[in-house]
Amino acid sequence: MKKIITISREYGSGGRLIGKLLAKNLGYSFYDKEIIDMAAQESGLSPDFIKKTEQNLSSGFLYNLLLGTSYSGTAGSAASSISGGQIVPLADQVFNAERKVILDLAKKGDCVIVGRCADYILNTSEEINKDELLNVFIYADVEEKLKRIEELYNEPELSAKKTIQQIDKRRANHYNTFTESTWGDRKNYDLMINSSTAGIETTAKIIAEVAKTN
Amino acid sequence: MKKIITISREYGSGGRLIGKLLAKNLGYSFYDKEIIDMAAQESGLSPDFIKKTEQNLSSGFLYNLLLGTSYSGTAGSAASSISGGQIVPLADQVFNAERKVILDLAKKGDCVIVGRCADYILNTSEEINKDELLNVFIYADVEEKLKRIEELYNEPELSAKKTIQQIDKRRANHYNTFTESTWGDRKNYDLMINSSTAGIETTAKIIAEVAKTN
Repeated sequence: MKKIITISREYGSGGRLIGKLLAKNLGYSFYDKEIIDMAAQESGLSPDFIKKTEQNLSSGFLYNLLLGTSYSGTAGSAASSISGGQIVPLADQVFNAERKVILDLAKKGDCVIVGRCADYILNTSEEINKDELLNVFIYADVEEKLKRIEELYNEPELSAKKTIQQIDKRRANHYNTFTESTWGDRKNYDLMINSSTAGIETTAKIIAEVAKTN
Repeated sequence: MKKIITISREYGSGGRLIGKLLAKNLGYSFYDKEIIDMAAQESGLSPDFIKKTEQNLSSGFLYNLLLGTSYSGTAGSAASSISGGQIVPLADQVFNAERKVILDLAKKGDCVIVGRCADYILNTSEEINKDELLNVFIYADVEEKLKRIEELYNEPELSAKKTIQQIDKRRANHYNTFTESTWGDRKNYDLMINSSTAGIETTAKIIAEVAKTN
């Protein structure tokens, strides 16, 4: 039985809904945005800042910082702070705090974790029993994603095709920056499901079925 | 209910076995190497030649032919022949014959078809009702693939890691040459399953479950 299930997902694919339903069906805990508050407690950074960092990581100064193109190394700069005597870019601090939270949750087990490179973090950690880990990627047809986002948020700018692509590009950049792997590459996942074909309920059902294997 | 199921697969992932079991469970017809004889009948080419073309398509003269780098256009050359008054490279003739066979089989319905770009051929054909089509990709961890191939064929050179990679590279090249898409790209599939995690039987079971959705 898989005790830790991670859900990576394209924006608008229904991954969050599927994860929630799956957690309910299995009696597991569900963690998505909850991780932001936990990481805030862990790091001392504000939840708002963490949220913004998650959303903007690939663009602007935080990304440049990671690449070292504009990182001055000055303590007290807007995008870095001193931690344990070392200057650590804030984007790294956010990642490290979320990493710590995800590992703690996984060690407790019986949980579904959405996003935040959890598949990679858990797959590469020696503290995690890989036989108990199931990594899932949810994707969908563009038309279905547009429809779902329009229904969920009712904000025209969020449901534009270009916005969808940009958000997925950010998710990919975030993943590819912080891991040694590629977002959406089948190597990282046990199961990749097009939710447009299977639908939310059948998708949750078949993930549960695979979770029950040894 | 999906009446046409295509299985694309990494070499050694058990895709053929899964397809066979799935066909048995659903009472569907199963087509893999059977397509070679049918395409031979369709094209007048020998089954042996078609088999060799399938295996070597990406390397050597047939591939060069497709790229136009060594194609002399001389009727009667070893790698081209006259068909309907036009000189058609033999690799194209093999693809076209297999395409025709796959479309005919799909139109009859209730079938599982393995390999041969069937997902792309059916997805892009106006003769096929897409609501009845399910495209599946099977992959697996390298160690599992090595183990399976060793057990199945007992030929050391086939089960070498390098050979596995080369065969998958050929499959990818073949697909990428004859389609406008990329082999293994999730866009082409409804479901991608790591058979190392789910196992042969559960994989066949969950494909059947998705096949039963509308």
